[in-house]
Amino acid sequence: MELLIKKIKNEGKVLSESVLKVDSFLNHQVDPELMFEIGKEFAARFKDDGVTKILTLESSGIAPAVMAGLQMNVQVVFARKRKSLTLVNDLLTANVYSFTKQESNEISVSQKFLKEDDRILIIDDFLANGQAALGLAQIVKQANATIAGMGIVIEKGFQDGGSHLRENGYKVESLAIVDSLADGKVTFRQDKVEETAQ
Amino acid sequence: MELLIKKIKNEGKVLSESVLKVDSFLNHQVDPELMFEIGKEFAARFKDDGVTKILTLESSGIAPAVMAGLQMNVQVVFARKRKSLTLVNDLLTANVYSFTKQESNEISVSQKFLKEDDRILIIDDFLANGQAALGLAQIVKQANATIAGMGIVIEKGFQDGGSHLRENGYKVESLAIVDSLADGKVTFRQDKVEETAQ
Repeated sequence: MELLIKKIKNEGKVLSESVLKVDSFLNHQVDPELMFEIGKEFAARFKDDGVTKILTLESSGIAPAVMAGLQMNVQVVFARKRKSLTLVNDLLTANVYSFTKQESNEISVSQKFLKEDDRILIIDDFLANGQAALGLAQIVKQANATIAGMGIVIEKGFQDGGSHLRENGYKVESLAIVDSLADGKVTFRQDKVEETAQ
Repeated sequence: MELLIKKIKNEGKVLSESVLKVDSFLNHQVDPELMFEIGKEFAARFKDDGVTKILTLESSGIAPAVMAGLQMNVQVVFARKRKSLTLVNDLLTANVYSFTKQESNEISVSQKFLKEDDRILIIDDFLANGQAALGLAQIVKQANATIAGMGIVIEKGFQDGGSHLRENGYKVESLAIVDSLADGKVTFRQDKVEETAQ
Protein backbone atom coordinates (compact mmCIF):
# COMPACT_ATOMS: atom_id res chain seq x y z
CA MET A 1 0.00 0.00 0.00
CA GLU A 2 1.81 3.00 -1.38
CA LEU A 3 0.47 5.64 1.03
CA LEU A 4 1.50 3.55 4.05
CA ILE A 5 4.97 2.76 2.66
CA LYS A 6 5.53 6.46 1.99
CA LYS A 7 4.48 7.26 5.55
CA ILE A 8 6.87 4.65 6.98
CA LYS A 9 9.68 6.01 4.79
CA ASN A 10 9.02 9.58 5.93
CA GLU A 11 8.22 9.06 9.60
CA GLY A 12 9.33 5.58 10.66
CA LYS A 13 12.38 5.43 12.92
CA VAL A 14 14.68 2.44 12.92
CA LEU A 15 15.68 1.90 16.55
CA SER A 16 17.58 -1.35 15.98
CA GLU A 17 17.77 -4.19 13.46
CA SER A 18 14.44 -5.46 14.74
CA VAL A 19 12.57 -2.41 16.05
CA LEU A 20 10.75 0.06 13.82
CA LYS A 21 9.10 2.95 15.62
CA VAL A 22 5.95 4.28 13.97
CA ASP A 23 4.51 6.16 16.91
CA SER A 24 3.77 9.30 14.88
CA PHE A 25 0.93 7.71 12.90
CA LEU A 26 0.07 4.20 14.14
CA ASN A 27 0.67 3.25 17.75
CA HIS A 28 0.79 6.39 19.86
CA GLN A 29 -0.19 9.27 17.65
CA VAL A 30 -2.70 8.01 15.10
CA ASP A 31 -3.36 9.48 11.66
CA PRO A 32 -7.13 9.09 11.15
CA GLU A 33 -7.00 9.77 7.41
CA LEU A 34 -4.35 7.08 6.92
CA MET A 35 -6.38 4.70 9.10
CA PHE A 36 -9.40 5.38 6.90
CA GLU A 37 -7.40 4.44 3.80
CA ILE A 38 -6.04 1.36 5.57
CA GLY A 39 -9.61 0.35 6.39
CA LYS A 40 -10.53 0.69 2.72
CA GLU A 41 -7.55 -1.41 1.68
CA PHE A 42 -8.40 -4.22 4.12
CA ALA A 43 -12.01 -4.13 2.92
CA ALA A 44 -10.83 -4.53 -0.68
CA ARG A 45 -8.43 -7.36 0.08
CA PHE A 46 -10.98 -9.37 2.06
CA LYS A 47 -14.12 -8.50 0.11
CA ASP A 48 -14.65 -12.07 -1.09
CA ASP A 49 -13.97 -13.78 2.22
CA GLY A 50 -17.41 -13.50 3.78
CA VAL A 51 -16.16 -11.63 6.85
CA THR A 52 -18.87 -11.26 9.53
CA LYS A 53 -16.75 -9.76 12.32
CA ILE A 54 -13.32 -8.29 12.99
CA LEU A 55 -11.17 -9.28 15.95
CA THR A 56 -8.19 -7.22 17.04
CA LEU A 57 -6.05 -6.64 20.12
CA GLU A 58 -5.92 -3.49 22.23
CA SER A 59 -4.59 -0.88 21.79
CA SER A 60 -2.86 -0.26 18.48
CA GLY A 61 -5.05 -2.63 16.50
CA ILE A 62 -8.22 -0.72 17.32
CA ALA A 63 -7.92 2.24 14.92
CA PRO A 64 -7.22 0.21 11.75
CA ALA A 65 -9.75 -2.46 12.80
CA VAL A 66 -12.57 0.02 13.40
CA MET A 67 -11.91 1.71 10.06
CA ALA A 68 -12.00 -1.67 8.33
CA GLY A 69 -15.22 -2.50 10.18
CA LEU A 70 -16.73 0.77 8.98
CA GLN A 71 -15.92 -0.11 5.36
CA MET A 72 -17.00 -3.75 5.64
CA ASN A 73 -20.09 -2.99 7.69
CA VAL A 74 -19.22 -5.45 10.48
CA GLN A 75 -18.73 -5.13 14.23
CA VAL A 76 -15.24 -5.05 15.73
CA VAL A 77 -14.18 -6.83 18.92
CA PHE A 78 -10.94 -5.98 20.62
CA ALA A 79 -9.31 -8.54 22.89
CA ARG A 80 -8.22 -7.13 26.22
CA LYS A 81 -4.80 -7.64 27.68
CA ARG A 82 -6.01 -7.48 31.26
CA LYS A 83 -9.29 -8.43 32.75
CA SER A 84 -11.45 -5.59 33.92
CA LEU A 85 -13.82 -5.84 36.85
CA THR A 86 -16.86 -5.50 34.62
CA LEU A 87 -15.72 -8.24 32.27
CA VAL A 88 -15.09 -11.48 34.09
CA ASN A 89 -17.48 -14.25 33.03
CA ASP A 90 -17.40 -16.54 30.05
CA LEU A 91 -14.07 -15.41 28.72
CA LEU A 92 -12.11 -16.99 25.91
CA THR A 93 -8.41 -16.54 26.69
CA ALA A 94 -4.97 -17.11 25.24
CA ASN A 95 -1.45 -16.31 26.34
CA VAL A 96 0.60 -13.99 24.18
CA TYR A 97 4.29 -13.35 24.72
CA SER A 98 5.53 -9.98 23.55
CA PHE A 99 9.22 -9.97 22.60
CA THR A 100 9.18 -6.16 22.43
CA LYS A 101 7.83 -5.77 25.94
CA GLN A 102 9.41 -8.98 27.23
CA GLU A 103 6.30 -10.02 29.05
CA SER A 104 3.45 -12.43 28.72
CA ASN A 105 -0.12 -11.19 28.62
CA GLU A 106 -3.31 -13.11 28.93
CA ILE A 107 -5.61 -11.78 26.25
CA SER A 108 -9.32 -12.31 26.58
CA VAL A 109 -12.55 -11.95 24.65
CA SER A 110 -16.06 -12.24 25.95
CA GLN A 111 -17.48 -15.48 24.59
CA LYS A 112 -20.81 -13.92 23.62
CA PHE A 113 -19.27 -11.82 20.84
CA LEU A 114 -17.92 -14.72 18.78
CA LYS A 115 -20.44 -17.17 17.33
CA GLU A 116 -19.93 -20.50 15.62
CA ASP A 117 -21.15 -19.18 12.29
CA ASP A 118 -18.88 -16.12 12.41
CA ARG A 119 -16.13 -15.67 9.83
CA ILE A 120 -13.54 -13.63 11.66
CA LEU A 121 -11.01 -11.27 10.14
CA ILE A 122 -8.10 -10.83 12.55
CA ILE A 123 -6.48 -7.39 12.28
CA ASP A 124 -3.33 -6.18 14.01
CA ASP A 125 -0.88 -3.32 13.66
CA PHE A 126 2.30 -5.44 13.54
CA LEU A 127 3.20 -8.99 12.63
CA ALA A 128 6.63 -10.13 13.76
CA ASN A 129 6.89 -13.59 15.30
CA GLY A 130 3.11 -14.05 15.06
CA GLN A 131 2.42 -14.48 18.75
CA ALA A 132 -0.47 -12.01 18.86
CA ALA A 133 -2.07 -13.35 15.67
CA LEU A 134 -1.77 -16.92 16.93
CA GLY A 135 -3.29 -15.94 20.27
CA LEU A 136 -6.24 -14.31 18.51
CA ALA A 137 -6.58 -17.36 16.23
CA GLN A 138 -6.64 -19.60 19.30
CA ILE A 139 -9.54 -17.55 20.70
CA VAL A 140 -11.47 -17.79 17.42
CA LYS A 141 -10.98 -21.58 17.48
CA GLN A 142 -12.24 -21.80 21.06
CA ALA A 143 -15.42 -20.12 19.84
CA ASN A 144 -15.66 -22.69 17.01
CA ALA A 145 -15.79 -19.78 14.59
CA THR A 146 -13.89 -19.61 11.30
CA ILE A 147 -10.81 -17.50 10.59
CA ALA A 148 -11.51 -15.70 7.32
CA GLY A 149 -8.06 -14.13 7.20
CA MET A 150 -5.52 -11.91 8.87
CA GLY A 151 -4.97 -8.27 7.97
CA ILE A 152 -1.71 -6.75 9.14
CA VAL A 153 -0.66 -3.13 8.84
CA ILE A 154 3.11 -3.71 8.98
CA GLU A 155 4.73 -7.13 8.68
CA LYS A 156 8.34 -7.64 9.68
CA GLY A 157 9.20 -9.97 6.83
CA PHE A 158 12.55 -10.84 8.40
CA GLN A 159 10.82 -12.51 11.34
CA ASP A 160 9.03 -15.80 10.87
CA GLY A 161 5.46 -15.01 11.93
CA GLY A 162 4.21 -14.30 8.41
CA SER A 163 5.66 -17.39 6.76
CA HIS A 164 4.54 -19.55 9.67
CA LEU A 165 0.94 -18.31 9.43
CA ARG A 166 0.86 -18.67 5.63
CA GLU A 167 2.27 -22.21 5.86
CA ASN A 168 -0.58 -22.98 8.22
CA GLY A 169 -3.03 -22.01 5.51
CA TYR A 170 -4.12 -18.60 6.71
CA LYS A 171 -4.74 -15.84 4.19
CA VAL A 172 -2.42 -13.13 5.50
CA GLU A 173 -2.58 -9.70 3.90
CA SER A 174 0.07 -7.24 5.05
CA LEU A 175 -0.19 -3.67 3.78
CA ALA A 176 3.55 -3.12 4.11
CA ILE A 177 6.21 -5.81 4.45
CA VAL A 178 9.54 -4.69 5.86
CA ASP A 179 12.27 -7.09 4.79
CA SER A 180 15.13 -5.49 6.65
CA LEU A 181 15.98 -2.79 9.15
CA ALA A 182 19.72 -3.24 8.67
CA ASP A 183 22.03 -0.21 8.68
CA GLY A 184 19.27 1.99 10.09
CA LYS A 185 17.37 1.73 6.81
CA VAL A 186 13.90 0.35 6.08
CA THR A 187 13.88 -2.00 3.11
CA PHE A 188 10.45 -3.03 1.85
CA ARG A 189 9.71 -6.29 0.07
CA GLN A 190 8.43 -4.25 -2.85
CA ASP A 191 11.79 -2.41 -3.09
CA LYS A 192 13.57 -5.75 -3.34
CA VAL A 193 11.29 -6.93 -6.12
CA GLU A 194 11.91 -3.70 -7.98
CA GLU A 195 15.64 -4.05 -7.55
CA THR A 196 15.53 -7.63 -8.81
CA ALA A 197 13.48 -6.52 -11.78
CA GLN A 198 16.02 -3.92 -12.82
CA MET B 1 -27.35 12.24 20.87
CA GLU B 2 -30.45 10.23 20.01
CA LEU B 3 -28.73 7.32 18.23
CA LEU B 4 -26.40 6.73 21.18
CA ILE B 5 -29.17 6.98 23.77
CA LYS B 6 -31.22 4.46 21.81
CA LYS B 7 -28.22 2.12 21.70
CA ILE B 8 -27.71 2.42 25.46
CA LYS B 9 -31.40 1.76 26.07
CA ASN B 10 -31.35 -1.31 23.84
CA GLU B 11 -28.00 -2.84 24.73
CA GLY B 12 -26.68 -1.25 27.92
CA LYS B 13 -26.71 -3.46 30.99
CA VAL B 14 -27.08 -2.03 34.48
CA LEU B 15 -24.77 -4.08 36.70
CA SER B 16 -25.22 -1.98 39.82
CA GLU B 17 -26.26 1.54 40.85
CA SER B 18 -22.95 2.81 39.51
CA VAL B 19 -21.90 0.42 36.75
CA LEU B 20 -23.33 0.51 33.24
CA LYS B 21 -21.98 -2.13 30.88
CA VAL B 22 -21.83 -1.11 27.23
CA ASP B 23 -19.44 -3.74 25.99
CA SER B 24 -21.56 -4.63 22.95
CA PHE B 25 -20.84 -1.36 21.14
CA LEU B 26 -18.28 0.79 22.97
CA ASN B 27 -15.62 -0.82 25.11
CA HIS B 28 -15.16 -4.42 24.03
CA GLN B 29 -17.18 -4.92 20.92
CA VAL B 30 -17.21 -1.65 18.98
CA ASP B 31 -19.87 -0.51 16.52
CA PRO B 32 -17.93 1.31 13.77
CA GLU B 33 -21.02 2.98 12.28
CA LEU B 34 -22.02 4.38 15.68
CA MET B 35 -18.43 5.53 16.26
CA PHE B 36 -18.54 7.33 12.91
CA GLU B 37 -21.71 9.18 13.97
CA ILE B 38 -20.15 9.96 17.35
CA GLY B 39 -17.14 11.40 15.56
CA LYS B 40 -19.45 13.62 13.49
CA GLU B 41 -21.26 14.78 16.62
CA PHE B 42 -18.02 15.71 18.41
CA ALA B 43 -16.83 17.55 15.30
CA ALA B 44 -20.07 19.56 15.25
CA ARG B 45 -19.97 20.41 18.95
CA PHE B 46 -16.34 21.58 18.88
CA LYS B 47 -16.27 23.11 15.41
CA ASP B 48 -15.66 26.65 16.72
CA ASP B 49 -13.03 25.73 19.29
CA GLY B 50 -9.97 25.74 17.05
CA VAL B 51 -9.02 22.15 17.88
CA THR B 52 -5.58 21.20 16.50
CA LYS B 53 -5.25 17.76 18.09
CA ILE B 54 -7.22 15.14 19.99
CA LEU B 55 -5.92 13.42 23.10
CA THR B 56 -7.53 10.26 24.46
CA LEU B 57 -6.67 7.31 26.70
CA GLU B 58 -6.23 3.70 25.63
CA SER B 59 -8.18 1.59 24.92
CA SER B 60 -11.87 2.51 24.80
CA GLY B 61 -11.27 6.16 23.92
CA ILE B 62 -9.46 5.31 20.71
CA ALA B 63 -12.40 4.43 18.43
CA PRO B 64 -14.49 7.58 19.14
CA ALA B 65 -11.36 9.76 19.14
CA VAL B 66 -10.09 8.51 15.78
CA MET B 67 -13.53 9.00 14.21
CA ALA B 68 -13.64 12.54 15.60
CA GLY B 69 -10.12 13.13 14.27
CA LEU B 70 -11.21 11.92 10.85
CA GLN B 71 -14.07 14.44 10.80
CA MET B 72 -12.04 17.31 12.23
CA ASN B 73 -8.97 16.56 10.15
CA VAL B 74 -6.60 16.46 13.12
CA GLN B 75 -4.20 13.86 14.50
CA VAL B 76 -5.13 11.78 17.53
CA VAL B 77 -2.78 10.86 20.38
CA PHE B 78 -3.69 8.14 22.85
CA ALA B 79 -2.10 8.20 26.28
CA ARG B 80 -0.71 4.86 27.32
CA LYS B 81 -1.43 3.21 30.64
CA ARG B 82 1.87 1.40 30.79
CA LYS B 83 5.22 2.34 29.39
CA SER B 84 6.38 0.28 26.46
CA LEU B 85 10.02 -0.49 25.80
CA THR B 86 10.04 1.59 22.62
CA LEU B 87 8.51 4.62 24.33
CA VAL B 88 10.56 5.70 27.28
CA ASN B 89 12.08 9.15 26.81
CA ASP B 90 10.56 12.57 27.25
CA LEU B 91 7.27 11.41 28.64
CA LEU B 92 4.56 13.59 30.12
CA THR B 93 2.87 11.58 32.84
CA ALA B 94 -0.03 11.73 35.28
CA ASN B 95 -1.53 9.32 37.78
CA VAL B 96 -5.10 8.20 37.25
CA TYR B 97 -7.05 6.20 39.78
CA SER B 98 -9.77 3.98 38.37
CA PHE B 99 -12.61 3.31 40.80
CA THR B 100 -13.97 0.61 38.47
CA LYS B 101 -10.71 -1.29 38.35
CA GLN B 102 -9.62 -0.22 41.85
CA GLU B 103 -6.11 0.52 40.72
CA SER B 104 -3.89 3.45 39.91
CA ASN B 105 -2.29 3.76 36.48
CA GLU B 106 0.42 6.05 35.35
CA ILE B 107 -0.68 7.39 32.01
CA SER B 108 1.91 8.81 29.66
CA VAL B 109 2.22 10.74 26.43
CA SER B 110 5.33 11.36 24.40
CA GLN B 111 6.20 15.02 24.80
CA LYS B 112 6.91 15.53 21.11
CA PHE B 113 3.25 15.11 20.13
CA LEU B 114 1.88 18.01 22.19
CA LYS B 115 3.08 21.51 21.30
CA GLU B 116 2.61 24.80 23.10
CA ASP B 117 0.42 26.19 20.34
CA ASP B 118 -1.82 23.11 20.27
CA ARG B 119 -5.48 23.38 21.22
CA ILE B 120 -6.30 19.94 22.54
CA LEU B 121 -9.68 18.25 22.55
CA ILE B 122 -9.73 15.54 25.21
CA ILE B 123 -12.01 12.62 24.31
CA ASP B 124 -12.96 9.66 26.49
CA ASP B 125 -15.58 6.95 26.53
CA PHE B 126 -16.81 7.52 30.09
CA LEU B 127 -16.85 10.40 32.55
CA ALA B 128 -17.63 9.44 36.15
CA ASN B 129 -15.49 11.01 38.85
CA GLY B 130 -13.33 12.74 36.23
CA GLN B 131 -10.02 11.11 37.16
CA ALA B 132 -9.09 10.19 33.60
CA ALA B 133 -10.08 13.58 32.17
CA LEU B 134 -8.14 15.38 34.90
CA GLY B 135 -5.09 13.20 34.26
CA LEU B 136 -5.23 13.99 30.55
CA ALA B 137 -5.71 17.70 31.36
CA GLN B 138 -2.65 17.57 33.60
CA ILE B 139 -0.62 16.20 30.69
CA VAL B 140 -1.86 18.95 28.35
CA LYS B 141 -0.85 21.54 30.97
CA GLN B 142 2.62 20.02 31.30
CA ALA B 143 3.01 20.54 27.55
CA ASN B 144 1.89 24.17 27.99
CA ALA B 145 -0.78 23.50 25.40
CA THR B 146 -4.40 24.67 25.67
CA ILE B 147 -7.41 22.52 26.50
CA ALA B 148 -10.04 23.33 23.87
CA GLY B 149 -12.65 21.12 25.48
CA MET B 150 -13.61 17.65 26.59
CA GLY B 151 -15.80 15.32 24.58
CA ILE B 152 -17.33 12.42 26.47
CA VAL B 153 -19.38 9.58 25.02
CA ILE B 154 -21.25 8.66 28.22
CA GLU B 155 -21.29 10.83 31.35
CA LYS B 156 -22.47 9.43 34.65
CA GLY B 157 -24.32 12.53 35.75
CA PHE B 158 -24.82 11.14 39.26
CA GLN B 159 -21.07 11.23 39.89
CA ASP B 160 -19.29 14.52 40.35
CA GLY B 161 -16.70 14.52 37.56
CA GLY B 162 -18.81 16.46 35.08
CA SER B 163 -19.85 19.24 37.45
CA HIS B 164 -16.31 19.50 38.82
CA LEU B 165 -14.83 19.90 35.34
CA ARG B 166 -17.47 22.44 34.27
CA GLU B 167 -16.96 24.43 37.47
CA ASN B 168 -13.30 24.58 36.57
CA GLY B 169 -14.21 26.27 33.30
CA TYR B 170 -13.83 23.39 30.88
CA LYS B 171 -16.24 23.04 27.98
CA VAL B 172 -17.51 19.50 28.54
CA GLU B 173 -19.76 17.96 25.89
CA SER B 174 -21.26 14.58 26.77
CA LEU B 175 -23.22 12.78 24.09
CA ALA B 176 -25.33 10.93 26.65
CA ILE B 177 -25.75 11.85 30.32
CA VAL B 178 -26.99 9.10 32.58
CA ASP B 179 -28.58 10.58 35.68
CA SER B 180 -29.38 7.36 37.46
CA LEU B 181 -28.90 3.62 37.32
CA ALA B 182 -31.28 2.99 40.22
CA ASP B 183 -33.62 -0.02 40.13
CA GLY B 184 -31.70 -1.55 37.24
CA LYS B 185 -32.94 1.20 34.93
CA VAL B 186 -31.01 3.78 32.92
CA THR B 187 -32.44 7.28 33.35
CA PHE B 188 -31.03 9.90 31.00
CA ARG B 189 -30.85 13.60 31.80
CA GLN B 190 -32.97 14.21 28.73
CA ASP B 191 -35.67 11.87 30.05
CA LYS B 192 -35.81 13.89 33.25
CA VAL B 193 -36.19 17.16 31.35
CA GLU B 194 -38.99 15.63 29.30
CA GLU B 195 -40.70 14.37 32.43
CA THR B 196 -40.46 17.81 34.05
CA ALA B 197 -41.89 19.37 30.90
CA GLN B 198 -44.95 17.14 30.97
